[in-house]
Amino acid sequence: MSAAATGVEDSPLAIVCGAGSLPFAVADAVIRRGRRVVLFGISGVADAAKIAEYPHRWGSVGQFGRLQRLLRDAGCRDVVFIGALVRPSLRQLRLDFKTLTLLPKIAAAFRGGDNHLLSGVGTIFEQHGFRLVGAHDVAPEILMPEGPLGKIHPSQQDREDIETGFAYLRAAGPYDVGQAVVVSGRHVLAVEAIEGTDRMLARVAELRVSGRIRAPAGRGVLVKAPKPTQDRRFDLPSVGPQTVEGVAKAGLAGLAVIAGETIVADPAEVAAAEDRLKVFVVGMKAVTAQ
Amino acid sequence: MSAAATGVEDSPLAIVCGAGSLPFAVADAVIRRGRRVVLFGISGVADAAKIAEYPHRWGSVGQFGRLQRLLRDAGCRDVVFIGALVRPSLRQLRLDFKTLTLLPKIAAAFRGGDNHLLSGVGTIFEQHGFRLVGAHDVAPEILMPEGPLGKIHPSQQDREDIETGFAYLRAAGPYDVGQAVVVSGRHVLAVEAIEGTDRMLARVAELRVSGRIRAPAGRGVLVKAPKPTQDRRFDLPSVGPQTVEGVAKAGLAGLAVIAGETIVADPAEVAAAEDRLKVFVVGMKAVTAQ
Repeated sequence: MSAAATGVEDSPLAIVCGAGSLPFAVADAVIRRGRRVVLFGISGVADAAKIAEYPHRWGSVGQFGRLQRLLRDAGCRDVVFIGALVRPSLRQLRLDFKTLTLLPKIAAAFRGGDNHLLSGVGTIFEQHGFRLVGAHDVAPEILMPEGPLGKIHPSQQDREDIETGFAYLRAAGPYDVGQAVVVSGRHVLAVEAIEGTDRMLARVAELRVSGRIRAPAGRGVLVKAPKPTQDRRFDLPSVGPQTVEGVAKAGLAGLAVIAGETIVADPAEVAAAEDRLKVFVVGMKAVTAQ
Repeated sequence: MSAAATGVEDSPLAIVCGAGSLPFAVADAVIRRGRRVVLFGISGVADAAKIAEYPHRWGSVGQFGRLQRLLRDAGCRDVVFIGALVRPSLRQLRLDFKTLTLLPKIAAAFRGGDNHLLSGVGTIFEQHGFRLVGAHDVAPEILMPEGPLGKIHPSQQDREDIETGFAYLRAAGPYDVGQAVVVSGRHVLAVEAIEGTDRMLARVAELRVSGRIRAPAGRGVLVKAPKPTQDRRFDLPSVGPQTVEGVAKAGLAGLAVIAGETIVADPAEVAAAEDRLKVFVVGMKAVTAQ
């Protein structure tokens, strides 16, 4: 990422908004830094009530021609994609003409995992003169700092579990699987694939209720890391208050992410939740995940 | 494993029985080969009605002294462990004196994953003059043969998913995680950890119902392999009619295992289920998983 992308530029920043609150956390941070924003909501996905508070436009997945026109009309050159986007079904796609001409490229991108899909879309954007920037480039303050976020610190045992978790994620990384794992006593209890972190945590909670996990509550760690192959302009792991609640419900001691490579939605609420629920949230040095 | 272990021996074979029908499939196969068996049921785990049909004794997990005495009384030297055994809680353990003296060793074995636990128990048995043999050594006919078991064959696309699945399991193997993965379009949809294969398949079925998996039914493969670190005397992956049903309910095309390294419980019922449910069950050459 060039240094220019992190500075204040004259052109407004385009934020293409998927689901959840992250797009607005990024928008607020960018506005605080003095740059204008235009939000592009993905219909049926982005939060319509929230998006109405910002300059915005709407479009559908697959309307690349429309998005390109809207971006140019709004004078945008830098584009950020942020927020959850469930892989759309072909039926849901409302393809416009421009997109149809790009279909062979998009189809090729679709065949791989999510990373291929996103990188493929990124390449297409750049070929049309836009610059894709990462949310962490335009709003670095939304990133997880190093060390514990709240008052609780991981124990030595937790640190061993964290190490095992990152090692596992490194090994599984090339397969474009999920970004998270639950480890207790150096034993991998659950691996996230397409179900997502919240459902994986719910599974751990169920396995505890059913007696399949017999370790006492307060042991074990949720470990999240970007995939090694991940295009970080699109998709960084993120944690928010509901992640902390899921960790507590799963009876874990806390959660560990890579500092500087993880987005924290609502840091104040996250810190409050972890102190209230007595779990830790810790940012580990990136070197751990190399 | 020595050649002698596969031959008919004078001493009866001791079969320590966990849950499920596999212990009896092994017992029947060994009896058919002309060797006597004595079943040692693990209380609260082994099927009491079924075990009553064989010469048998009962014991608890943790009663190593009792098991050793019973084994010697029955004239057994070769011991097979077979069937599912959920990691016991310390409260459930009814330790006898001999086990107490072995506790430091057992505790060390407990600290690792299941493989460490089982290998640790194996070492203890061998130090006491018993010989641990694998179910596949005493009853090779229970193993999955090479090629499709029923009438349905995997497509080229299925074979690509199978390749991806085995590659993933190889990469994750050193972490002593589960032995199974669901792959569709070379994309990993689910990874088994401690929840077991049946629950992972149920999760895939749910993800399909909720729209998170959008591929049409009849795509994707369940891939199972022994862990690279697995002590195969204790624990080979196994498939049975209920695995085939789970695969069908999850909307997958079929399941792939390693030929010669997977136990098939009730092969006739498995073949009938796959033909009825239109899914394949295929044994791949072991070299695929190296």
